[in-house]
Amino acid sequence: MPTQSKSTRRNAFYAQSGGVTAVINASAAGVIEACRRHSRQIGKLYAGRHGIVGALTEDLIDTSRESAAAIRALRQTPAGAFGSARYKLMGIEQDRAKYERLIEVFRAHRIGYFFYNGGNDSMDTALKVSKIGAELGYAITCVGVPKTVDNDLPVTDCCPGFGSVAKYVAVSTREAALDVASMARTSTKVFVLEVMGRHAGWIAAAGGLAGKRPGDAPHVILFPEIAFERQRFLERVKDSVTRYGYCVVVVSEGVKGTDGRFLAEAGSTDAFGHTQLGGAGPEIARIVKEALGYKCHWAVADYLQRAARHIASKTDVQQAYAVGKAAVEFAVRGQNAVLPVIVRKSSRPYRWTIEAAPLEAVANVEKKVPRDFVTDDGFGITAACRRYLEPLIAGEDYPTFKDGLPVYARLRNAPVKRRLATEFEV
Amino acid sequence: MPTQSKSTRRNAFYAQSGGVTAVINASAAGVIEACRRHSRQIGKLYAGRHGIVGALTEDLIDTSRESAAAIRALRQTPAGAFGSARYKLMGIEQDRAKYERLIEVFRAHRIGYFFYNGGNDSMDTALKVSKIGAELGYAITCVGVPKTVDNDLPVTDCCPGFGSVAKYVAVSTREAALDVASMARTSTKVFVLEVMGRHAGWIAAAGGLAGKRPGDAPHVILFPEIAFERQRFLERVKDSVTRYGYCVVVVSEGVKGTDGRFLAEAGSTDAFGHTQLGGAGPEIARIVKEALGYKCHWAVADYLQRAARHIASKTDVQQAYAVGKAAVEFAVRGQNAVLPVIVRKSSRPYRWTIEAAPLEAVANVEKKVPRDFVTDDGFGITAACRRYLEPLIAGEDYPTFKDGLPVYARLRNAPVKRRLATEFEV
Repeated sequence: MPTQSKSTRRNAFYAQSGGVTAVINASAAGVIEACRRHSRQIGKLYAGRHGIVGALTEDLIDTSRESAAAIRALRQTPAGAFGSARYKLMGIEQDRAKYERLIEVFRAHRIGYFFYNGGNDSMDTALKVSKIGAELGYAITCVGVPKTVDNDLPVTDCCPGFGSVAKYVAVSTREAALDVASMARTSTKVFVLEVMGRHAGWIAAAGGLAGKRPGDAPHVILFPEIAFERQRFLERVKDSVTRYGYCVVVVSEGVKGTDGRFLAEAGSTDAFGHTQLGGAGPEIARIVKEALGYKCHWAVADYLQRAARHIASKTDVQQAYAVGKAAVEFAVRGQNAVLPVIVRKSSRPYRWTIEAAPLEAVANVEKKVPRDFVTDDGFGITAACRRYLEPLIAGEDYPTFKDGLPVYARLRNAPVKRRLATEFEV
Repeated sequence: MPTQSKSTRRNAFYAQSGGVTAVINASAAGVIEACRRHSRQIGKLYAGRHGIVGALTEDLIDTSRESAAAIRALRQTPAGAFGSARYKLMGIEQDRAKYERLIEVFRAHRIGYFFYNGGNDSMDTALKVSKIGAELGYAITCVGVPKTVDNDLPVTDCCPGFGSVAKYVAVSTREAALDVASMARTSTKVFVLEVMGRHAGWIAAAGGLAGKRPGDAPHVILFPEIAFERQRFLERVKDSVTRYGYCVVVVSEGVKGTDGRFLAEAGSTDAFGHTQLGGAGPEIARIVKEALGYKCHWAVADYLQRAARHIASKTDVQQAYAVGKAAVEFAVRGQNAVLPVIVRKSSRPYRWTIEAAPLEAVANVEKKVPRDFVTDDGFGITAACRRYLEPLIAGEDYPTFKDGLPVYARLRNAPVKRRLATEFEV
């Protein structure tokens, strides 16, 4: 790699996109530290304030103003330290003005590298930016950084963000199950935990790790991939209460009835046009109480699950950092329109490596839980699923604590001086 | 203390009562290990299977069958390892048959010590058992072991179980707040976390520890002690979104309107006649969305919060163990109808000790959050409250992990051979 003079070095841009995770900042730390190590090729690294919105509005953050200690703290900080955005760019023809604006801002700030940290939609955006760059004759190296708690990206074995939410759900299910088991004789007999996962049941599946022996909770998992059959479900709950004295249900927010409709629809949609869900848990509890009369409790973990850095998976933190670092290394090697993916070499012992995959292969594709990961009755996980999931929640990576609370990074997030006279409304 | 011969030594009975906590088993470990050390005075320690129900039905567990290692593991295991019960004994005249049955079972098993691990109601029961024992001429030393996540016991400075749920809520609030802050530009602007606390707002108050600086989340705390005023609340939410871009609300399940009615009533009641709540969180989110149009998310932690041994407060674990141990020490010194309470000697540095208090002083009294712990506007905690709460969440006491999950004790729970021919229906 030839050393580039300061004047020919180009800057880089990093943005967080979509729902944040407990470890997306670990990816940010990976990107930032790798950029600093590759200072011969990369000048400054700018972050978008609130993701791609920051690029469109020329609201950039100068990450060079953050200390090395702050970036180390970033590794143990949940959520998006620069702000994320639910802001989908459509096709180039449809949203041409936005793509052209991106290139205008990149050109103004001599940005030659675009690192986009997100899920399926974001990989699609990164791909389109690389195309518009080529079309407009502006050289831009676009590399995705995979992130999503939903674990629904194809190609990669798993997706950073997922391991930690999986660990949170498995731990919480195990703990709450002990609670219910100890109370069931005279009080709550059925406990329902609603977890995230709009179309893919990976997070719900992780609840299955809580139990090891026959009869252990959770007794029922409801996946979005398996149509909810009320009568069969109720029979299973009744059977569990009869046999074990209690029943723990883990339900995905995205569970659907045999008619294909979400069990609980909040009725509103997000910026990507996805229906905003919430309420599958209370709905399931209502169904059980009405039909069987058992005292039920329900919990909806919502953001607590994806922000729970205090119980992050060490494997997940390492992978999140590794994909951030790898993205920069791919870029300086000149690899364009790719993203780092995790390749599993073995499950026991767990061995993995990072490879480059084309953005094209990942953009807008959802990977669902395969049928052979779900037991025949549709209510549990198979040994194959367990073998897949177990390494992803392995290890603890506790943040440092002060006065009983985790110490999370507070960045300066200093703005980069604007160079464009034009405003852009998003 | 004179050594008693094996034949004059009397056995002990321990029962867990009411809603379980992350550390009630640490109290159990304290009781068991102290009984083992006092084997000159105390014979076997029996536990009630499902609390007092186990005593009434003569379903006793022989704790001497558990290994020392199992009892050490118990210290790090949430929920009630012997089973708890929501089963209130009424006045002696009203429930005379039950009290007489208890004495019958105690007599049959030569039980001379009664350790009852619970909250206000349970301290009342322990007191009544000591009275009925005296009335029937059966010598029984009754000692309470305080426990409740609600922290609503009087006399004691705090109550084991509370510190850990407080830590869970403070940590979760801090984490979820970072999530919302990073998404608010284009997505969720208001996040509502519903926490436990039927009549006392201690747990909601603990959410206030998440923030340190002005503008930090949570921006609004809704206490059951402060009547909910819709308009004032909405103004505060709007102000927070305008100033900081987002708003985090921590709401107690027991929040009531100015008419004195619970904001969300599930409509059913538990064994103690308390209304079973749930839904204040979604109700608050609905109110905000309807009035202000902000995108809202809500979480209901429910049992996750009180079972969360993985993020237990070290202080709380130590105190839970200490009150269990002290209860046995009081009993062998012949102190009757008392319970160990925690006395704060200083806040900074935190110093505490254990003393004996009469059950009479604690039974059926609820300690609410005092008005001077709540800011004048009713939406936050004062410096005095913070000074009170901070030491209670201090320190981490992580359980051991295996394969990514906490290792929780599984006891043998071997039954004690029945000695009575009579059955008792509960």
